[in-house]
Amino acid sequence: MRKVTTVAVIGAGTIGASWAAYFLGRGLKVRASDPAPGAEALIARMAAGIGADTAGLVFERDPVRAAAGADFVQESAPERYDVKLGLLPAISKVLGPDVPIASSSSGLLVSRLREGCLHPGRVLIGHPFNPPHLMPLVEVVSGEGADPAAVEAAMAFYRGVEKYPIHIRKEVPGHVANRLQAALWREAVHLVAEGVASVADVDAAISEGPGLRWALMGPSLTFHLAGGDGGMQHFLGHLLPAMQTWWDDLGTPNVDAALQAKLVAGVEEEAAGRDLAALAARRDRFLRELVALRKKTDS
Amino acid sequence: MRKVTTVAVIGAGTIGASWAAYFLGRGLKVRASDPAPGAEALIARMAAGIGADTAGLVFERDPVRAAAGADFVQESAPERYDVKLGLLPAISKVLGPDVPIASSSSGLLVSRLREGCLHPGRVLIGHPFNPPHLMPLVEVVSGEGADPAAVEAAMAFYRGVEKYPIHIRKEVPGHVANRLQAALWREAVHLVAEGVASVADVDAAISEGPGLRWALMGPSLTFHLAGGDGGMQHFLGHLLPAMQTWWDDLGTPNVDAALQAKLVAGVEEEAAGRDLAALAARRDRFLRELVALRKKTDS
Repeated sequence: MRKVTTVAVIGAGTIGASWAAYFLGRGLKVRASDPAPGAEALIARMAAGIGADTAGLVFERDPVRAAAGADFVQESAPERYDVKLGLLPAISKVLGPDVPIASSSSGLLVSRLREGCLHPGRVLIGHPFNPPHLMPLVEVVSGEGADPAAVEAAMAFYRGVEKYPIHIRKEVPGHVANRLQAALWREAVHLVAEGVASVADVDAAISEGPGLRWALMGPSLTFHLAGGDGGMQHFLGHLLPAMQTWWDDLGTPNVDAALQAKLVAGVEEEAAGRDLAALAARRDRFLRELVALRKKTDS
Repeated sequence: MRKVTTVAVIGAGTIGASWAAYFLGRGLKVRASDPAPGAEALIARMAAGIGADTAGLVFERDPVRAAAGADFVQESAPERYDVKLGLLPAISKVLGPDVPIASSSSGLLVSRLREGCLHPGRVLIGHPFNPPHLMPLVEVVSGEGADPAAVEAAMAFYRGVEKYPIHIRKEVPGHVANRLQAALWREAVHLVAEGVASVADVDAAISEGPGLRWALMGPSLTFHLAGGDGGMQHFLGHLLPAMQTWWDDLGTPNVDAALQAKLVAGVEEEAAGRDLAALAARRDRFLRELVALRKKTDS
């Protein structure tokens, strides 16, 4: 497998610049490209924010020149087929045949992103969770026609830079994490709509309860432990009937103007005058320390 | 409002003993009762586990004697109407009229638990998230006929001992947190059933992604921040169509024998030979440090 020393970051808006900063922080050489005037400065600012050295950064306005010589490509251009299909085929022609091209796309079909590319099977989705420099998750979508060696190389690359890639075998809307978020939020919105509890209290039902566990383990492993010595088998035998009762009662809210106003008023009440920038800074500080705590837990 | 110095813990199985240990750790006097021979020893063991002094513990086999003189009652008897209704009315008769009686029930109706009690409006549900000595969340269900002063007293009591009570205004199956867990897990099971990703990878889509944020903030405040400067209003304006697409595509799995076997095999693969007791000890160690980290984040 090709050793990755140089990553091309094609598209350096919020997502791409965060990727570039993260890769620099991992000691990789980064060749970045973006048509926007402030892109190089954005990367530098994000790199400074995580204490990453920008000595390994080369910025090229032309994406094809940026891609040449890279061992891995992370593409984060705007989320439109016309934009991405204006980049990927040209880039693919200047890369070695074994260089994976991963798109940060959250919603486009990888099978369409492959169209017109040289060695199309190495074009994948490598969808980060925002912001990429803080969140470990990367969703690797292979889809029909993927080259298994490229999938393996991409998974190995992300693991090697301490991201946590998961392999999504079938294309579905929202990949996996956004669907799970949508499922949780749908019921949260339903409970607010029905007047069962306030926005702040529904939020706290997560952050003071199961959310604390989910920062370490996903829902299935959590229930495996909830089953005591019998694990998931016991859990299913004893708690599936109650679970089914809850499933049958979950709601599907209609988010009309009145409910939107209720949600907006609810989060503003919850924020209690703290401004968004301060809350975001608090979240990011917390995330950094949380990732460190998890490392300590498993060391 | 009555100052709480003595709590009666009626029923000291896993949940009740954990409550008793927690209250002792907060410096309260605890009067505990349970018919099982090992109950007092279980409280002592749990108290030792969190470094709580048991000098303030009085154990009475008779629940009515245990309740007498208490300023707050936390009832955690088995989850059956006949058992709880065999205790609550008798207990209510030896308590001051302003002493809240909170039941740890996860699924019974508070309106039925009130039947036959003296001052029935002070009977509430105070449902902890397991284990109570580690998890901040307490769901306070008032329901029809609740005494607002009792609700306020229970909320104040839980806050005072550093639990995080939320007020559930309408009785619905599963209160709030279990419904939210059920909503998330339903989609997780659906994605496994459809072969989109493995159990371990679906779990990681939470624990390496949104689960990290949910340990600090619930889903609505998370999306408020995802909306940038425009907050929830911007989020709804721009991301509701995508959210609706995902909502429309979420699944409702049929957990038959084959899917149960797939879930059991999946979590066992994820556990990778680590035994359940070791995983539970790791989780509890992590939870303690996580709660400390959150305090630091807001200090």
